[in-house]
Amino acid sequence: MISKLSLSQIKLTIVFVIFNSVSIPINLLGQSQVDDAWVIKNIHNNTLKSGQCYEWLRSLCTLAPGRLAGSPQGLAAVELTRQIMDTLGFDTVYLQPCKVPHWVRGGKEVVKIINSPHIGDQELRALSLGNSIGTGPQGLTGEVIEVFSLDTLEKIKTLIAGKIVFFNRPMDPTQLRTFAAYGGAVDQRGRGPAMAAKFGALAAIVRSMTTRLDDFPHTGGTNFQSSDKQIPALAISTNAAELLSKELKKGKVSLYIKNDCKMMGEKWSYNVIGEIKGSNFPNEIIAIGGHLDSWDVAEGAHDDGAGCVQSIEVLYQIKKMGYKPQRTIRAVMFQNEENGLGGGNTYAAASNLKKEKHIFALESDSGGFTPRGFGFSAEKDVFEAYYKKVNTWSNLLEPYDLRLYPSGGGADIGPLRTQKGLLSNLQPDSQRYFDYHHTEIDKFEAVNKRELELGAAAMTSLVYLIDKYGL
Amino acid sequence: MISKLSLSQIKLTIVFVIFNSVSIPINLLGQSQVDDAWVIKNIHNNTLKSGQCYEWLRSLCTLAPGRLAGSPQGLAAVELTRQIMDTLGFDTVYLQPCKVPHWVRGGKEVVKIINSPHIGDQELRALSLGNSIGTGPQGLTGEVIEVFSLDTLEKIKTLIAGKIVFFNRPMDPTQLRTFAAYGGAVDQRGRGPAMAAKFGALAAIVRSMTTRLDDFPHTGGTNFQSSDKQIPALAISTNAAELLSKELKKGKVSLYIKNDCKMMGEKWSYNVIGEIKGSNFPNEIIAIGGHLDSWDVAEGAHDDGAGCVQSIEVLYQIKKMGYKPQRTIRAVMFQNEENGLGGGNTYAAASNLKKEKHIFALESDSGGFTPRGFGFSAEKDVFEAYYKKVNTWSNLLEPYDLRLYPSGGGADIGPLRTQKGLLSNLQPDSQRYFDYHHTEIDKFEAVNKRELELGAAAMTSLVYLIDKYGL
Repeated sequence: MISKLSLSQIKLTIVFVIFNSVSIPINLLGQSQVDDAWVIKNIHNNTLKSGQCYEWLRSLCTLAPGRLAGSPQGLAAVELTRQIMDTLGFDTVYLQPCKVPHWVRGGKEVVKIINSPHIGDQELRALSLGNSIGTGPQGLTGEVIEVFSLDTLEKIKTLIAGKIVFFNRPMDPTQLRTFAAYGGAVDQRGRGPAMAAKFGALAAIVRSMTTRLDDFPHTGGTNFQSSDKQIPALAISTNAAELLSKELKKGKVSLYIKNDCKMMGEKWSYNVIGEIKGSNFPNEIIAIGGHLDSWDVAEGAHDDGAGCVQSIEVLYQIKKMGYKPQRTIRAVMFQNEENGLGGGNTYAAASNLKKEKHIFALESDSGGFTPRGFGFSAEKDVFEAYYKKVNTWSNLLEPYDLRLYPSGGGADIGPLRTQKGLLSNLQPDSQRYFDYHHTEIDKFEAVNKRELELGAAAMTSLVYLIDKYGL
Repeated sequence: MISKLSLSQIKLTIVFVIFNSVSIPINLLGQSQVDDAWVIKNIHNNTLKSGQCYEWLRSLCTLAPGRLAGSPQGLAAVELTRQIMDTLGFDTVYLQPCKVPHWVRGGKEVVKIINSPHIGDQELRALSLGNSIGTGPQGLTGEVIEVFSLDTLEKIKTLIAGKIVFFNRPMDPTQLRTFAAYGGAVDQRGRGPAMAAKFGALAAIVRSMTTRLDDFPHTGGTNFQSSDKQIPALAISTNAAELLSKELKKGKVSLYIKNDCKMMGEKWSYNVIGEIKGSNFPNEIIAIGGHLDSWDVAEGAHDDGAGCVQSIEVLYQIKKMGYKPQRTIRAVMFQNEENGLGGGNTYAAASNLKKEKHIFALESDSGGFTPRGFGFSAEKDVFEAYYKKVNTWSNLLEPYDLRLYPSGGGADIGPLRTQKGLLSNLQPDSQRYFDYHHTEIDKFEAVNKRELELGAAAMTSLVYLIDKYGL
């Protein structure tokens, strides 16, 4: 048992703290915080010494790559994570059915510059965007018009009819946090194609969402509302975007596009949930999760196999150290984050029906990189008190380079916000995330074992504190 | 010019600060600190937008891999970095001759379990340690004795004669900073073979210095003093070490070892130095550097091509932004860090002769990963004042996740300590460093462009502050 420490153990702590390269300012900590420092150090030690998440991730990436919601691979991933949790001695492991869209890519897409007076025909590395329709077997041909913002589109709308709109605003490399750069560019992928369709475009192509110059196209969801006209929409690699832009500076460019994707309607899939029942407050829920689905072209290692296996690791470490949580702790593998949030919406709706209260929900969906801290959000009237409370633990987390930020949450846990608990996301180092995001190189090998484990240990530490002290 | 800012620029700063995801608490900064925040933001922007260090690293790794001191590749690297700096408009670029040892690996080494009743013959992935002697063409055969510390060796010395000593204490995975784990295990590689030789061992093999379990042996220097008896010394991969240890639990194990390495005597090589002359205090030197040499089996991307190209980038960015330093700023590619410190010792001796004062020396030799901060050290009587001074800038560096630590420096700049300036090292995220260190997988592709550039920007920012305010 961890929660009751003898004096000798506390002495050990102090020796350890001096010995270890992590310096915890003991004199600043009260007695119970010395206990907590010791527990958190143990969580880190155990996870780094005998964590299982890396091997679980290997299984998930190897046995269920390309696990898009609605696909057979998606169901394989459901069964695999259920099996993994089933062996770990949690109180319950269960599947929660949810409806998801089933979109399929079809055959390999073609995007080709044709009849260029400078370079002749030139194929561009491309991937259809998720939810895109296909061109039909003949494909389509059209002149390209390059734009850098959705606002421009509105201004030049008369020029767009019958053309292929090329959204080419790069992610801003000067943003220290790459998610901020992503947020500043992804409107082109999300709403660009639908807006181009509105003005009569034939098709839309989008520069891949990465600051890197390389040959890997990044897919991702594009949104057509039910009232929107739909057109084929594809991403091209950043190198291809640079080439196309260069050609456009020389004169008119025509593209041939063929893709084969279509929406197959709704399917049943599942959230996969593992649970340890709370001993004192079983109706107060602490949920931690990632999303189980990935894009079809990816192994989904960083996005978001990492978040799934880290969430399982949290419960595993809690169980393994013999800690009996006061609150009910759940690991949730959410389904269908990438193209619909069917899993997250179903989970929240079911929880509301059961009149549960999620006092805390934590999502890991920013890659399995070295953790830097946590972001937090909540309904306005409760946020300040929560944020003040978690900040009383900052000196416990600081030695692990974990900082707390007043902004954060996650797509899957967003619908839980109305339960008035605290929402949070793990914030790992973001520099490499968009090298891999939604590409064929988001593979198991791109994840470092220690970095993944440190993320899991950080999550376990925060969950321990919230379970112990409440919110 | 950066140092004189108009009011409109300062307004821009404030807008920018709000706009950018990096939040600088402007109200906490005095006016000159607002200027500094603006300069440091610009340094980061420029380096991330148009830094050259990643392409220089590509050249260095591609054109001069395996650039061990004394080797032809080592001279190629000297010429290459001289050429790179020659094109950048620095005030001077020059070579500083230094004597270095020339050790050669020779043919591929063999380490093989022989005649095991369980697994028969089994080759183990191995690399001779730097400075090791060879076995001669026949190789040698001996029984293995496994030890976990140098202290044990002393206690069981009577058992050692005629045996092959196998040092198998793993790096401690629970250390948050992997350099601390390295420091806790590397005595086995550094002094283990010489101690084993003293007690009559035939040869020594050492578990590779990494927390990863894989098949890549890690070389690195071993130290035989001139009075020491010398024996062949090799590293085996961690997977090989695990296998060998498992076999030893079943009974006696014999190894066949053959390696071919030898010391070829001293050669001339060079430190490569680029310099911008100080406008006000030319005799106060700020030196920044990495080491140019790498192990023969590696491209030397993280160790330490990264530190070299980052150091050049610092001067390049300073030059490019039109900043005229008050002090003389030098980028130094030190020679022979890996097996002798010929470059660092020569540099300091020459500097002492010229009665220079290095007010600040900064080394980057911990890989091209996301920077976390800087460590500092100095002679005891001056350290406190220096450390207090650099801490007045912590609010300028904090927005870039850069923290300051009262311990740090570098092997190459260590000999400058007696000049009573401040020594420092860039401290990047350490989780992945020992995946690559001294192995064949320390390749250009293992370095991420943004992470490398952020390290360079961090270094430039600190150099700017020290140049502006002195120490």
